[in-house]
Amino acid sequence: MIYSALAERIRNNKPVVLLTVIDGPNLGATLLASPNDSKLDTLGTLGDPELDRVAVRDALGELEAGRTSVRNYGPTGQVTPEDLTDTPIVRIFVESYSPPPQMIIFGAVDFTAALARVAKVLGYYVVVCDAREVFATKRRFPMADEVLVTWPTPVLAKLGDNLGARDAICILTHDPKFDVPAIQGALATKVGYIGVMGSRKTHAKRLERLAEVGISKPEDLDRLMSPIGIDIGSRTPEETAISICAEIIGKRVGRIVPSLSNSDGPIHK
Amino acid sequence: MIYSALAERIRNNKPVVLLTVIDGPNLGATLLASPNDSKLDTLGTLGDPELDRVAVRDALGELEAGRTSVRNYGPTGQVTPEDLTDTPIVRIFVESYSPPPQMIIFGAVDFTAALARVAKVLGYYVVVCDAREVFATKRRFPMADEVLVTWPTPVLAKLGDNLGARDAICILTHDPKFDVPAIQGALATKVGYIGVMGSRKTHAKRLERLAEVGISKPEDLDRLMSPIGIDIGSRTPEETAISICAEIIGKRVGRIVPSLSNSDGPIHK
Repeated sequence: MIYSALAERIRNNKPVVLLTVIDGPNLGATLLASPNDSKLDTLGTLGDPELDRVAVRDALGELEAGRTSVRNYGPTGQVTPEDLTDTPIVRIFVESYSPPPQMIIFGAVDFTAALARVAKVLGYYVVVCDAREVFATKRRFPMADEVLVTWPTPVLAKLGDNLGARDAICILTHDPKFDVPAIQGALATKVGYIGVMGSRKTHAKRLERLAEVGISKPEDLDRLMSPIGIDIGSRTPEETAISICAEIIGKRVGRIVPSLSNSDGPIHK
Repeated sequence: MIYSALAERIRNNKPVVLLTVIDGPNLGATLLASPNDSKLDTLGTLGDPELDRVAVRDALGELEAGRTSVRNYGPTGQVTPEDLTDTPIVRIFVESYSPPPQMIIFGAVDFTAALARVAKVLGYYVVVCDAREVFATKRRFPMADEVLVTWPTPVLAKLGDNLGARDAICILTHDPKFDVPAIQGALATKVGYIGVMGSRKTHAKRLERLAEVGISKPEDLDRLMSPIGIDIGSRTPEETAISICAEIIGKRVGRIVPSLSNSDGPIHK
């Protein structure tokens, strides 16, 4: 029962953590915990409701970090079991399954293949999306996990709810027909990184178009990394891919990186 | 004759440029030029010695940039053939073969595989070198072009002369037995980038060991990017690989990037 629920979560690429008693009373008892949008699903028990509560709380932290570990408790969830005398210590094996972070790339251009290749090294699940079916082909992007021939709005309506701090949306089209709805859709999600390609001039024009569709709040515009990437003088698509991924890494851990979006002057000197 | 010389240069991974008359007198005439260390080898003629001289000079610039192009001259090498009346314009097809830049990685560690994968996206010819034969295996580094079980000194004695501004040496070992000779060998080359992994503490200790073997000139020490990479808060080998490649790109084009080697404070905050 627990294992079929575990298998189902993994099959559906949802985060899940399995707790197993490997020492102490109730040896072999298992508990499955999976955050499901805002609520928490649990299945099984470690033998004590308070132990369940404390161990699940800790396990969700491990899951968030993608870690598998062993934790020690008292039989009713005491967190400093070394202090207990005459009671057995319960050792819990915590196994995390975190699905890979996602990167959705809008625009099936030359930069896309290079970015997808570097993103794969970083472990992303990569989705390439473009409305032009001659460009958005699996043959052109064999390294992508999915290549979708469609518009940004339906893609983000479908995938948007699953996007969080670890995920990234990169908008590499230069076509307002495509990038305005992509930005609108991206801002409606909790995605951690939104990068938008284009020169400083393109970015200025794009801001006007965004204002026309009602996007002008500073907290929204601040989320847009545009021009995309950090200022390392990238010239080729491959170098640009490095500059984008460096920006994503730096932004996720809260580093101040020399983002092109925070500076002025020419991108190519 | 020209084509077999061309094939031989390409086979040996040496830069070479082929010039062919595609319009004007001597249609189809070919000239092969290849910089050979400090001297220049040429073979064939475009039909006029002055035309040969000027066209080869320009072609070497194209070769440096790795470009293939068409250039126009007067029949005796005039560079503004549009000004000539009553004389035919000679159009020359310039085909460049530039071997890929090289990255030599010392140390067959976990970071090596990630760096080699990212370097391959950037088009590097990647050589991995470690003296420990259980670690330096093609199976562990299938993405590397060469995996050498040997010490830094003989590797750099053999490959060092071919290294230039576009190439990189990354020293990922933490073992002074290995990294001191690797740094000595690297400094003896014209390689454009030398990165050395290690904490700030390791770097301080390493400077002492380098001083013991006579390496203490500021212009030498300035070439060492250590700790390796830029400050984007990288944690995993893959993130570190991005940070190293971002530093290489920025350094090559002369950008000021937030190198760890130019800052202080903890690498991991």
